[in-house]
Amino acid sequence: MPSFEVPEVVVVRLPLYVRALTTLLAEGSEMVNSQQLGSRLLMTPAQIRKDLSYFGKFGKQGRGYNTRFLLRELRQILALDMEWRACLVGVGRLGRAIINYPGFAPEAFNIVAAFDQDPLRVGTEIGHLTVQGMSELSVTVERRGISIGVVAVPAAQAQEVIERLVSDGVRGILNYAPLAPKAPAGTVIRNIDPVLSLQSMTYYLRDCLGVSSA
Amino acid sequence: MPSFEVPEVVVVRLPLYVRALTTLLAEGSEMVNSQQLGSRLLMTPAQIRKDLSYFGKFGKQGRGYNTRFLLRELRQILALDMEWRACLVGVGRLGRAIINYPGFAPEAFNIVAAFDQDPLRVGTEIGHLTVQGMSELSVTVERRGISIGVVAVPAAQAQEVIERLVSDGVRGILNYAPLAPKAPAGTVIRNIDPVLSLQSMTYYLRDCLGVSSA
Repeated sequence: MPSFEVPEVVVVRLPLYVRALTTLLAEGSEMVNSQQLGSRLLMTPAQIRKDLSYFGKFGKQGRGYNTRFLLRELRQILALDMEWRACLVGVGRLGRAIINYPGFAPEAFNIVAAFDQDPLRVGTEIGHLTVQGMSELSVTVERRGISIGVVAVPAAQAQEVIERLVSDGVRGILNYAPLAPKAPAGTVIRNIDPVLSLQSMTYYLRDCLGVSSA
Repeated sequence: MPSFEVPEVVVVRLPLYVRALTTLLAEGSEMVNSQQLGSRLLMTPAQIRKDLSYFGKFGKQGRGYNTRFLLRELRQILALDMEWRACLVGVGRLGRAIINYPGFAPEAFNIVAAFDQDPLRVGTEIGHLTVQGMSELSVTVERRGISIGVVAVPAAQAQEVIERLVSDGVRGILNYAPLAPKAPAGTVIRNIDPVLSLQSMTYYLRDCLGVSSA
């Protein structure tokens, strides 16, 4: 059972630990301490120990953690030890790039269906998928065990598509549309928004190379 | 001058304030208080007041903020009142989707050059750009005033490409490759990593619909 008492900011950091531990293990580090993890992730050892303490006791005082054990535990806590099935909504340019994104499958995230509102796109082939109309969403979600919806429609349609996905039984939304959608109750939304990332980057760049907009 | 005493987590939140204020202004709210901003962003009013206090005094006790003034100040702090020029490295499927991403230009982020290491791609047209070889990177960065590099190469090449960009004068990196690159000194890196987003989502989804990987 996920404990909703763990702050979301902590949960969001766990995949970083999983990634760092995977690398450390591949490099042959069978034991790891919070200093080593911290120096990889630019975080204080105290922060890492505090984050992990929400989930139990993984190491012995002063001896660090068994890398393999901690990695397995964190993957289990995050439910990364199972396959997750997703559907894509919106098969324009961005949607086609997402279907072909090579990073999902190795991590057991599989896009098993694609939908579009445009009748001209329904029935076309994208990668190994045949694009379906939105009227088939509900049945497909149930039949295929889909729990994640990847939203790649224009901003103006995104809120409506997200609500449709949720009402058809999808609980997790990965949103690529450039807006901050309202999350229906009981859902988890993650926004992929490159503009937001750029807008916090320029703060640090403005003393160098920016071009005045005259 | 950017003050490096402002914690990065605060800087990263400012674009959210900019977006919320833009919407509020469009809706006709000429004044806004930290309660209203907080309820839009699911943050406590105290957190918002503390974040803003790093940059000065924007409102009068009990009267809230002038929306237009606060928005203009925050855009100036983040250096969003100027044009930023970027180059793309890697014009595979993902790179082509990025060039065509409709969200950059309205926010004055312009991709003005595209590069690829593959000689077969050099000279081809992507959108309104002609793909250039990496040997032209340094000259183009200087001539066009490019300060941001968008990296869309495979993970195995990303670290090398990032270091090349930095040594050729690019200070900000928007990285789409699925890895956590090491940032050369004096640079700002933002990673766009949908897998990381999914991996913190499944924590909340695991009690419902996941499929056992047998």
